[in-house]
Amino acid sequence: MSETLLLHEYAASGNCYKIRLTAALLGLPLERREYDILKGETRTPEFLAKINANGRIPVLQIGDQCLPESNAACWYLAEGSALIPPDRFACADMLRWMFFEQYSHEPNVATLRFWLAFVGEANLSDAQRTQISAKRQGGEAALALMDDHLARRDWFVGQTATLADIALYAYTHVSEAGGFRLDDYPAIGAWLGRVAALPGYVPMAD
Amino acid sequence: MSETLLLHEYAASGNCYKIRLTAALLGLPLERREYDILKGETRTPEFLAKINANGRIPVLQIGDQCLPESNAACWYLAEGSALIPPDRFACADMLRWMFFEQYSHEPNVATLRFWLAFVGEANLSDAQRTQISAKRQGGEAALALMDDHLARRDWFVGQTATLADIALYAYTHVSEAGGFRLDDYPAIGAWLGRVAALPGYVPMAD
Repeated sequence: MSETLLLHEYAASGNCYKIRLTAALLGLPLERREYDILKGETRTPEFLAKINANGRIPVLQIGDQCLPESNAACWYLAEGSALIPPDRFACADMLRWMFFEQYSHEPNVATLRFWLAFVGEANLSDAQRTQISAKRQGGEAALALMDDHLARRDWFVGQTATLADIALYAYTHVSEAGGFRLDDYPAIGAWLGRVAALPGYVPMAD
Repeated sequence: MSETLLLHEYAASGNCYKIRLTAALLGLPLERREYDILKGETRTPEFLAKINANGRIPVLQIGDQCLPESNAACWYLAEGSALIPPDRFACADMLRWMFFEQYSHEPNVATLRFWLAFVGEANLSDAQRTQISAKRQGGEAALALMDDHLARRDWFVGQTATLADIALYAYTHVSEAGGFRLDDYPAIGAWLGRVAALPGYVPMAD
């Protein structure tokens, strides 16, 4: 890739980490610019006008073009690589797990981590507090579904790691910070180990 | 496509309609099987075991393989067609809008329609009721972002309709059932007309 890749990020965000992990597994250099989302640094008029009108990170900047949405950015980096299966059904099935991640996993597993480990339970609004139990239940259902799927295979799709594994790894491997118990999901535990052993793997805190 | 395509669906669901609309625009025949989600017909042991362990429709069945997640099913149908742009950035940007749809649009715009027009406000739980105002605000933010984007272009990505338009059309064009006012978003109104004028277009109620 000839154009400079710049990741606008908040390093503790699993959505941002997905992009760093994808780039690392592919050996792509990535520049990084940090924003403090707790201080509203992605809601400034300049950020909204130039980086992402949706006021969110991550955004992958490719030359002068900005690409929001973590899983779309991973797709951009991985196109043409072994992280995206060439088979028509397998590719759609990989996207299926990536949409599952954003719809059924992230809003539960990532949000509880953010609320409990970053915002703090005492600082939650009443509306947030009333959602904790539904998000706990939704997150456990997502993890149980993953565990059942992984009990019969090593990777989410096919015989090797794809973007589906990267997308689901990001918030699953830190889900205990949101009060989930990974010991309850042994197949997930073994799969987390396989992801962490991939050549080029980088941990979240780097 | 040589294998039979069978859509497991609830016809009033915008997520199911996306797949029907994609197939119609591509001229692909689609068999359909209806489930009443209000009666829990997608949570039966048989459905969970054979169709989708996540208990949700739509599921696109291709021969004997099942593919959940509406936007993944649209991708499967459209691969290799003009509904997916061949350019690397444009394709990722299309996926960006499809992930935006599932993360920032559907949980607000579609959920309020479902709660207010299908479940009925009087039947909502207290936890649901406390979320109405946040979902109203989130839905209006998503529609405003779309309207601003469409004020400067005819389609979400590039010069022609792509899966991004189909994904966002499905719940936007029926959003008034959830209490949103489309008159507030003139660029969206013009774009809805362009989608409905596409050759092969089918309405939701068919």
